[in-house]
Amino acid sequence: MEPVKIGLLGLGTVGGGTVNVLTRNREEIARRAGRAIAVARACARDLHKPRICPLEGIALTTDPIAVVEDPEVAIVVELIGGTGLARDLTLTAIDGGKHVVTANKALIALHGNEIFEAARSRGVMVAFEAAVAGGIPIIKAIREGLAGNRIEWIAGIINGTGNFILTEMRDKGRDFEEVLDEAQRLGYAEADPSFDVEGIDAAHKLAILAAIAFGKPLAFDMVYTEGIRQVTREDVQHAEQLGYRIKHLGIARRKEQGVELRVHPTLIPERRLIANVNGVMNALLVMADAVGPTLYYGAGAGAEPTASSVVADLVDVVRTMTTDPTHRVPHLAFQPDAISNLPMLSIDDCETAYYLRMLAEDRPGVLAEVATILGNAGISIEAVVQPEPPRGASQAKLIMLSHRVFERQMNEALAQIEALESISGKVTRIRVEQLDGD
Amino acid sequence: MEPVKIGLLGLGTVGGGTVNVLTRNREEIARRAGRAIAVARACARDLHKPRICPLEGIALTTDPIAVVEDPEVAIVVELIGGTGLARDLTLTAIDGGKHVVTANKALIALHGNEIFEAARSRGVMVAFEAAVAGGIPIIKAIREGLAGNRIEWIAGIINGTGNFILTEMRDKGRDFEEVLDEAQRLGYAEADPSFDVEGIDAAHKLAILAAIAFGKPLAFDMVYTEGIRQVTREDVQHAEQLGYRIKHLGIARRKEQGVELRVHPTLIPERRLIANVNGVMNALLVMADAVGPTLYYGAGAGAEPTASSVVADLVDVVRTMTTDPTHRVPHLAFQPDAISNLPMLSIDDCETAYYLRMLAEDRPGVLAEVATILGNAGISIEAVVQPEPPRGASQAKLIMLSHRVFERQMNEALAQIEALESISGKVTRIRVEQLDGD
Repeated sequence: MEPVKIGLLGLGTVGGGTVNVLTRNREEIARRAGRAIAVARACARDLHKPRICPLEGIALTTDPIAVVEDPEVAIVVELIGGTGLARDLTLTAIDGGKHVVTANKALIALHGNEIFEAARSRGVMVAFEAAVAGGIPIIKAIREGLAGNRIEWIAGIINGTGNFILTEMRDKGRDFEEVLDEAQRLGYAEADPSFDVEGIDAAHKLAILAAIAFGKPLAFDMVYTEGIRQVTREDVQHAEQLGYRIKHLGIARRKEQGVELRVHPTLIPERRLIANVNGVMNALLVMADAVGPTLYYGAGAGAEPTASSVVADLVDVVRTMTTDPTHRVPHLAFQPDAISNLPMLSIDDCETAYYLRMLAEDRPGVLAEVATILGNAGISIEAVVQPEPPRGASQAKLIMLSHRVFERQMNEALAQIEALESISGKVTRIRVEQLDGD
Repeated sequence: MEPVKIGLLGLGTVGGGTVNVLTRNREEIARRAGRAIAVARACARDLHKPRICPLEGIALTTDPIAVVEDPEVAIVVELIGGTGLARDLTLTAIDGGKHVVTANKALIALHGNEIFEAARSRGVMVAFEAAVAGGIPIIKAIREGLAGNRIEWIAGIINGTGNFILTEMRDKGRDFEEVLDEAQRLGYAEADPSFDVEGIDAAHKLAILAAIAFGKPLAFDMVYTEGIRQVTREDVQHAEQLGYRIKHLGIARRKEQGVELRVHPTLIPERRLIANVNGVMNALLVMADAVGPTLYYGAGAGAEPTASSVVADLVDVVRTMTTDPTHRVPHLAFQPDAISNLPMLSIDDCETAYYLRMLAEDRPGVLAEVATILGNAGISIEAVVQPEPPRGASQAKLIMLSHRVFERQMNEALAQIEALESISGKVTRIRVEQLDGD
């Protein structure tokens, strides 16, 4: 049988990795898919730039439209990133009756509803395993592997750069800025690291996960996002003393009142498997009603891990391209007419425990003042740590762990605490999750 | 649209769990599958026995053939276990043009080649996600999620009973027999625990994993199997002192010379995630060329975790039952004409490091005798521990960790060591794996 011909938009890290995997594992892939998969055409902005992959047999162009409209190309692989040109090319490909495989989380998170509707009406597939957690087959696991379950929550380390930084801060006692500099030198972090460290990248992925887990439309703008810049080396150490690790988690939770979607630094008990996922690795913990907790771990980025998911999607598409479109796995796990708009909860309505760190006057009675405010707000304290202040210092650090409380209540209590004369500056707060079940 | 009607063989733990999940999540499942799934008929040996699930709307019978031959039934779910009647019923269902979903690892490991060939020629599907690692969607992950990779090795904790026993031995310093008794009281271990503690159950699962990972036929009889009975509380403690945990692993590895398939107690570094998978939980670490290491964790047994996989398979079958059979995911991941018989390595040809424990005369020079034999056999020593013997004892324990060596070499060296006058009895040996990459 003729190989299935694909067109590649982008020959950078993931594009090059995809060509390498398709080339090296050509035989193994054909043995699984039943047909060979060949890159017929590819586009890149600069055809003279050295590439990480062989280019023999691939017709090269600088014009992405030439790839999308090539009548030989059955599947377009979109790896240029961004949400402008990528969206246009994806919609053009769909319009031309071509299937699309993409690694573009922003594209799916922001324009997925529109793209999947276009794909549905044209009877083509848009596959996006590589958009979330790189090489971990988490989209497939949630969408198909857990199809019998009501999914309750997902908590994931879904940004490798952020996890690398937090891991280094813990292991080597280094400061955020210092590690970020190194991550940039090593190529883990972009020159503009804000997508990673501010949690935007994780929020894109979380929006996708929540849609396929809960059967609701994509809603990136509803994700509460907090970065890791304000986490200090001290916080990491104090968390450790209390038996916790700090991870930058994406959390999607379905509650009776609505859906929580939030990305923020989180203390998690060190005995949890996910607390021990270090460096640039990703992991997702999924709680579902029948199976209970399951965890998925692997490389969340990089040329070949991402290519692994791109190629898995290609094999899926090749297997089902001749199938009646109504019998394929729905893009967002649920049939399009069964997706329902669930209410979204604001961060004020989220309930978590808290780690608090504040600078207090070093005299008896201050703890009582703080504890009184918390007590009056209905907030119970699980632990208090007051490290011995440096000799001669007039202020001491006060670290507390609260029990679970609504964010709104905590906000009110913290405003009162910050107004105390005995407390200097703002109170640092980091949410705490037990992630029971792992 | 009419619900898809299924026939259930067996209403025990997994059968009852499956009815419960299909009932409770009826709406959620239909929203994903596009059609409702209903249990039309079920058989059980004793219709008067109390069940864990509701039975309304299910036509009950004691005759499994009545279920398999019921013209209303489109999918037969085989949950009676064993390899005699289960095989006959599965083949009868296939012959009648029905799809089959099974949780029966022994059936697939022993008769899978025959069953899949029958299914292929009849154009039906046989799905078996629940046969390996309960609720973890590992078959789907390997068969589809990693389809772009050449899979190098898999190491898994794939028997919950064994992992419970080893975890208790470590956490509570208890002996094997004592924990086994408790596991039987708690219902984790069968009255005849040999399938679990001797590794037969794990070997069934490993045979299935190896076939779908490497594209070779099922070959249960080629799995080297060693149980956990000979692991003592002391071994668990000494391993801990050396920075290791003892786990009962199933390991499938593809090497240039052939495939290793082995189930045995294994020391693994405590820093690995999989070393921290405790109690009855299962986990699989998969090393593949493009994605690198990925790990999958979850409940490996129990009513609803297993039902989770049964229902996921039902949804898959419902989605693809109208599809051209040649475009479905192949049963064993590779197209039937692309499965190739790889050579199998005997345990003698496996290469691992070893933990050795022996009882030696407590006098200078004994270590030198042992070390000389190992050195002459080309075996390097990584660590030696000689705990202070009890006061007045004339013999002392000698614990060693070797570097990697072929089993054959180690056998020869151990025979010589056991022949030394200064060594009493047999040398205990437990293989050591670094599982690099997790």
